[in-house]
Amino acid sequence: MSSGILKGKRGIVFGAMDPNSIAWKVAEKCVEHGAEIVLTNAPVALRMGAINELAEKLNAKVIPADATSLEDLENLLKESMEIFGGKIDFILHSIGMSLNVRKKKEYTDLNYEWMLKTFDISAISFHKLMQTAMKMDAMSDWGSIVALTYIAAQRTFPDYSEMAESKALLESFARSFGYHWAKKAHVRVNTISQSPTMTTAGTGVKGFTDFFGYADKMSPLGNASAEACADYCITMFSDLTRMVTMQNLYHDGGFSSMGMAPEVLE
Amino acid sequence: MSSGILKGKRGIVFGAMDPNSIAWKVAEKCVEHGAEIVLTNAPVALRMGAINELAEKLNAKVIPADATSLEDLENLLKESMEIFGGKIDFILHSIGMSLNVRKKKEYTDLNYEWMLKTFDISAISFHKLMQTAMKMDAMSDWGSIVALTYIAAQRTFPDYSEMAESKALLESFARSFGYHWAKKAHVRVNTISQSPTMTTAGTGVKGFTDFFGYADKMSPLGNASAEACADYCITMFSDLTRMVTMQNLYHDGGFSSMGMAPEVLE
Amino acid sequence: MSSGILKGKRGIVFGAMDPNSIAWKVAEKCVEHGAEIVLTNAPVALRMGAINELAEKLNAKVIPADATSLEDLENLLKESMEIFGGKIDFILHSIGMSLNVRKKKEYTDLNYEWMLKTFDISAISFHKLMQTAMKMDAMSDWGSIVALTYIAAQRTFPDYSEMAESKALLESFARSFGYHWAKKAHVRVNTISQSPTMTTAGTGVKGFTDFFGYADKMSPLGNASAEACADYCITMFSDLTRMVTMQNLYHDGGFSSMGMAPEVLE
Amino acid sequence: MSSGILKGKRGIVFGAMDPNSIAWKVAEKCVEHGAEIVLTNAPVALRMGAINELAEKLNAKVIPADATSLEDLENLLKESMEIFGGKIDFILHSIGMSLNVRKKKEYTDLNYEWMLKTFDISAISFHKLMQTAMKMDAMSDWGSIVALTYIAAQRTFPDYSEMAESKALLESFARSFGYHWAKKAHVRVNTISQSPTMTTAGTGVKGFTDFFGYADKMSPLGNASAEACADYCITMFSDLTRMVTMQNLYHDGGFSSMGMAPEVLE
Repeated sequence: MSSGILKGKRGIVFGAMDPNSIAWKVAEKCVEHGAEIVLTNAPVALRMGAINELAEKLNAKVIPADATSLEDLENLLKESMEIFGGKIDFILHSIGMSLNVRKKKEYTDLNYEWMLKTFDISAISFHKLMQTAMKMDAMSDWGSIVALTYIAAQRTFPDYSEMAESKALLESFARSFGYHWAKKAHVRVNTISQSPTMTTAGTGVKGFTDFFGYADKMSPLGNASAEACADYCITMFSDLTRMVTMQNLYHDGGFSSMGMAPEVLE
Repeated sequence: MSSGILKGKRGIVFGAMDPNSIAWKVAEKCVEHGAEIVLTNAPVALRMGAINELAEKLNAKVIPADATSLEDLENLLKESMEIFGGKIDFILHSIGMSLNVRKKKEYTDLNYEWMLKTFDISAISFHKLMQTAMKMDAMSDWGSIVALTYIAAQRTFPDYSEMAESKALLESFARSFGYHWAKKAHVRVNTISQSPTMTTAGTGVKGFTDFFGYADKMSPLGNASAEACADYCITMFSDLTRMVTMQNLYHDGGFSSMGMAPEVLE
Repeated sequence: MSSGILKGKRGIVFGAMDPNSIAWKVAEKCVEHGAEIVLTNAPVALRMGAINELAEKLNAKVIPADATSLEDLENLLKESMEIFGGKIDFILHSIGMSLNVRKKKEYTDLNYEWMLKTFDISAISFHKLMQTAMKMDAMSDWGSIVALTYIAAQRTFPDYSEMAESKALLESFARSFGYHWAKKAHVRVNTISQSPTMTTAGTGVKGFTDFFGYADKMSPLGNASAEACADYCITMFSDLTRMVTMQNLYHDGGFSSMGMAPEVLE
Repeated sequence: MSSGILKGKRGIVFGAMDPNSIAWKVAEKCVEHGAEIVLTNAPVALRMGAINELAEKLNAKVIPADATSLEDLENLLKESMEIFGGKIDFILHSIGMSLNVRKKKEYTDLNYEWMLKTFDISAISFHKLMQTAMKMDAMSDWGSIVALTYIAAQRTFPDYSEMAESKALLESFARSFGYHWAKKAHVRVNTISQSPTMTTAGTGVKGFTDFFGYADKMSPLGNASAEACADYCITMFSDLTRMVTMQNLYHDGGFSSMGMAPEVLE
């Protein structure tokens, strides 16, 4: 479905690694709905990923940026504005990685250096991005910033480990900075709390398949797919949601509102 | 902006009374975005309101229905499906009225007969509507049902009186019935928690103007207008939000996420 | 453990039916910690229950009261104050019953007359009690009012049916009236959201045993017992919690904060 | 009031700086209710504070510990167990400090090195404490761990700056670690979300006095004092609250449940 609801809008999409990535779908849908985009990812992820194919298909530029580096972010925003010939209308932050999970350190035996790195990559990068964009006055009036998150910020999923804290931090940054962005340029900042998704990142978490199946049964509509998430992002970038800000929006087939699903007991 | 994102969709809009009504704006935007609609309101409201002008403008039928009457609801759904030549894709429930507020009974001196009437009109009508529609199998697969609510369901606004409980009830019905609708036909059910709005209904509440000004200052983007709310409803009726269900969605310029706005202190 | 933390306090305990009742345990613990109490229940429940044994053991009076009757509530409060020789320091509301559940009507086929009765018994009785007490100026300064609730008010447990709405209503009354009680006499009003409990009432709900087992696994500390709930009520009646008001307090072994327990998957 | 409800319990109290500190009151009340305690604070805070007077009065040892240092925490726990002759029954974490606030950096111009330090002191210290205690098996069965927090973790108070994120992080650690502690030794972990308090730390925040006055008007019972907070902590350390875990408990005179107080408009 191509609606043109993003016609004339220009945005930056972080985190498109491969066709399983939510950000990949978002990029495709943005263009489908009329937007012009810039793709970005960490240099190391760019080397591994197939992003150039995507860029070609969407006629989009790829600008490498380590989201923890203020210099890289500044460069990304500057180059994007040059490409667009103006300010940025929307941004998707879809970045998350836990060093302790990757290195199989239990939650009760965390390495704190790694924890700080995890926070820097998965959450503080979001503040850095917004702070840099604000200093550069890079966002259009009534623009939209979205970050992807997970319900582990509210409830405990033991295997999610320190990513629970990363997401709590990320969502707090959205609320806090949302105030400042509203005051500066009517920009809204929200997080979308997505179902567990069969992405390369998601499947790295311990016991992910059981997790996924449980969430699917617990969700009256089933788990939301990456593609459905991309659709939802489109609404958040469009002018139809201008007054929604500082919210954490569950896109999860109803999971967050279930206490117990009879389907799980069976 | 006309996007066609509701093209081919057919829906029922409750509660359009006059051009200040949120439901009025929703009706207009639905048609603008490609939907076909039926308008409905209580017979008494129809007599007072200007709904026929709206109906004419939108080329829509008006079917009177007392939302507390199962017979009226059944008739409404039956006639609507005849007009549409098929099932219903979306419904907006925008109904609320407090007898105790209207009759100036304080919250600590409520008349309980009136309270029950208030609940029946403002909240139970929503269950009745959904139960009737389910029995008639009246909703299309992946349809969308939305009710308008207010944050008084979560936090205390003393002058809002028993409407706080009405909204708590309404939101609970959305969650509970959302499970059953998902299982039956992938229909999603959500509530939109809107800023105080300068409608005829809203302005009837005691001290509404101060209330409105306070909320406006407390909301980083200001209070959301009826028109913006209608835009948001459009996204919820479109196929872009299919996996969002059983949620209460704040459309309030950020009010719900503010603890204290410096603007209020000044 | 007898601490004397309720020494000198006088309270009314609703809903002690048999030794499995939470209210029964609360009554015992209140006296153990130094309080003087009055027991009350609906006349019909009194006939079925063993409350007289409890009353004798605790040296407490039993005053029958239908909690939906303003006259009965007024009489209860009046007689209690006579017995106590003064105002009331604390009240426990532990009342809930669903006609539709009892009569096996599904949530998508509810009888609305019965629903109103359910709400009247399970929730509106709480407002009636507080309104009557306020008119009679029956509560001591810095008193405490507690009602027992369940997490179905926030999340969907399909078999809990209309009790979800009853509890949403109950909790909203606590918040709303909490404001007025604070202003009048510094009285606090809270709800305690208890684990599923093996009471006579609890076990009446469809599929309760599976429900109970699931919740027990999902709760890191296991389900909270009636006795533990009674302990928690004691803290809420004591002077140690004077500034906690308008809250819904989970007493559930951690259930409410779990997203997924590995124990459930095994 | 001395109840003896903490009789036989041994606990560690972090953060008692001067008689205005909440932790100072907690220490006093713990002893009053029968507990034996160890006091601790950062070496630099100890030099500034009057903690030795308190220690003398309460007949308690003072063990200096930088809460960001794993070595210091290990030493603190080891020495405490030696003093107590056994495991620890309860811990109060009352630590918070923002470098960016102290150095007057705006939220939109934060220094990220300082932010990491802020998180380490104000939040990660809590994880470090729990991880160290778990490795040492230092907590008694059915013990209780409490950290003090603020509602800025849920709602935006612009002047609170990065402390919002610190508290979001702290509360997330409580939930996440609460699961592991429950499984290991039935230890409960909760946060108490306290009213703005006239402590030396609190008053350092920009515009604190206006803030305090606003919150006081917004809270139906007024702001909760440090002393009342200490009372509440006592209940959380006692055996009366054994099944409450992974919760964030508002101790705020009702602030968190208010949408708008008429008192604020006047």
